[in-house]
Amino acid sequence: MSRFFSTTHKNLVPYVPGEQLNDKKYIKLNTNESPYPPSDKVKKAVSEEVSRLMLYSDPDSKELVSALAKRYNLPEDCVVVTNGSDEILNFAFLAFCDSTHPAIFPDLTYGFYKVFANLYNLPYTEIPLNKDFTVSPEDYMLNNATVFLANPNAPTGIALELSEIEKIVKANPDNVVIIDEAYVDFGTESAVSLVNKYDNLLVTQTFSKSRSLAGARLGMGFASPELIKDINTLRYSTNPYNVNRMTMKAGVSAIEDDDYYMNNCKKIQLTRDYTASSLKELGFFVTDSKANFLFAESKRIKGSDLYVKLKEKGVLIRHFESDRISNFNRITIGTQEQMEIFISKVLEILEEEK
Amino acid sequence: MSRFFSTTHKNLVPYVPGEQLNDKKYIKLNTNESPYPPSDKVKKAVSEEVSRLMLYSDPDSKELVSALAKRYNLPEDCVVVTNGSDEILNFAFLAFCDSTHPAIFPDLTYGFYKVFANLYNLPYTEIPLNKDFTVSPEDYMLNNATVFLANPNAPTGIALELSEIEKIVKANPDNVVIIDEAYVDFGTESAVSLVNKYDNLLVTQTFSKSRSLAGARLGMGFASPELIKDINTLRYSTNPYNVNRMTMKAGVSAIEDDDYYMNNCKKIQLTRDYTASSLKELGFFVTDSKANFLFAESKRIKGSDLYVKLKEKGVLIRHFESDRISNFNRITIGTQEQMEIFISKVLEILEEEK
Repeated sequence: MSRFFSTTHKNLVPYVPGEQLNDKKYIKLNTNESPYPPSDKVKKAVSEEVSRLMLYSDPDSKELVSALAKRYNLPEDCVVVTNGSDEILNFAFLAFCDSTHPAIFPDLTYGFYKVFANLYNLPYTEIPLNKDFTVSPEDYMLNNATVFLANPNAPTGIALELSEIEKIVKANPDNVVIIDEAYVDFGTESAVSLVNKYDNLLVTQTFSKSRSLAGARLGMGFASPELIKDINTLRYSTNPYNVNRMTMKAGVSAIEDDDYYMNNCKKIQLTRDYTASSLKELGFFVTDSKANFLFAESKRIKGSDLYVKLKEKGVLIRHFESDRISNFNRITIGTQEQMEIFISKVLEILEEEK
Repeated sequence: MSRFFSTTHKNLVPYVPGEQLNDKKYIKLNTNESPYPPSDKVKKAVSEEVSRLMLYSDPDSKELVSALAKRYNLPEDCVVVTNGSDEILNFAFLAFCDSTHPAIFPDLTYGFYKVFANLYNLPYTEIPLNKDFTVSPEDYMLNNATVFLANPNAPTGIALELSEIEKIVKANPDNVVIIDEAYVDFGTESAVSLVNKYDNLLVTQTFSKSRSLAGARLGMGFASPELIKDINTLRYSTNPYNVNRMTMKAGVSAIEDDDYYMNNCKKIQLTRDYTASSLKELGFFVTDSKANFLFAESKRIKGSDLYVKLKEKGVLIRHFESDRISNFNRITIGTQEQMEIFISKVLEILEEEK
């Protein structure tokens, strides 16, 4: 920290992204990326756009907003796009939380919620998950705070039913409920269908996981036109050209190639089922994940040891040090072939432990 | 505004970007873009990167930071890259201003400074420019505020000498001085050479103007390692993957092709001189702009009228409504051919006015 850094931020603990290692070739199962590349249409559209890069991007990303509106059956003024879904979450904290509107979210969830709240000195409460890592919907029905819920939740992958989400939205008429659906395309029913019905609901999604564009940075929000207007007020007050030209085109093409991506999601679900069964056969406890990752622990090996030994064997998974989950690891679902190697390496490590 | 929008922002007036019109083909001289396309190396690098878009970008953009450090003769820990230079300005307000560290900047300058200050409820003072639109360096030598100075300034294009910038930096040992060099490559001496010498200096630049990448969103900051660390703390607390893979590669290639871009800057300077002389011949007052735009007024026609009539004739320029400059227009320098058309249209309009 420099001697000039505002004391407002002196205790700020930034988000820690997954490792990006280049020392050797890893099977990378640590940041929930898709193992499948973008479609040819994306490649073509991006390549064509480069010759126009001297011109600013459209601050309203109209072409992409229109494609998303059509895909999700919403009016265009219910849609906004952002530089990754972290950016729309950032805007949601700025827009809908303040000293009289605290935030609430689970104690185990996407680590960034706490970072945003601390960054802007916003009051927040972390609601403990149940012992089995499930969310109790009733905890979020008090109509006294801005609700942030990842569905499915991270890093557990456990999802709430749409009917439960609707109850939460309904029970908070005076507060915004943000449903973070980063992982929704891997088998959870989306709350986008509720956007027309509730003016207090903001659903956020991302092209990073199901649409193979983590490296392009593209997120989106779906909400009532009034909430979208608020988000746009902040977007135009921070970075109006937030989505660059290439990413905008990549997003439009990805929507046009929806079948390819949704089919990849199905493949990932099948591989997830295979990986979960295999881990269970090896004695692991595995949560019922509806995401493109698993969350698992073994009584036979410490979570941090498994993480280190897999890394030595060329497989990167994600280990979190927080107390309650320090024996767990989060494992991104790669291709079937990658996961078979992963399982064989886990088996090797467990054998070595004996 | 929705009924949920935090009252903190109820008076927030967002930044207004230049018009993006698609109703017909315009000569676009309204957003200070380069008329020259990115180089072939940029096109090739971006096209190759698309197949890796399913993977997150490097949060530290090491390859680009390293290329910039080499280009500007600085250690790598003195460099940071951002999603446009608006993002680093945003971080600078968050990092170095608070209730005890107000911001100061000219009353006529880049419109976003005021937006950022208002967004975060930071105290600020606008220092009136002199009557001839120049900055008095002494106004910024009181060591009592975080200084934001665009050099050259916008929308006037007028620049301070490096020796004057150094005096300001030196006179503010207890405050950060941010020199916003968005337009520096068109004929102003950069303060990057002072970064090694002063721990309170942050120089910001962009690839949007001189390097033909407005649509890719790429900005950068140069400062002491301690200031860069503060910026990174905020970057990792808002959007760690802020620079996408394609833009990162485009930036690296643009630095490799430096001669092409710096040669374009020289062409733009020559065209600027031609355009300024031509406008003066038509009786315009034109500021001494060192940027890729001119700032001009005519006693023969109201600024807003000239703007409207040029738009009818297919030429877009930028008109600002603020009192002091309401008779002025800001005209981006395009190609020589475009500026010859611009001048001929201005002539037509002045003839019609008679």
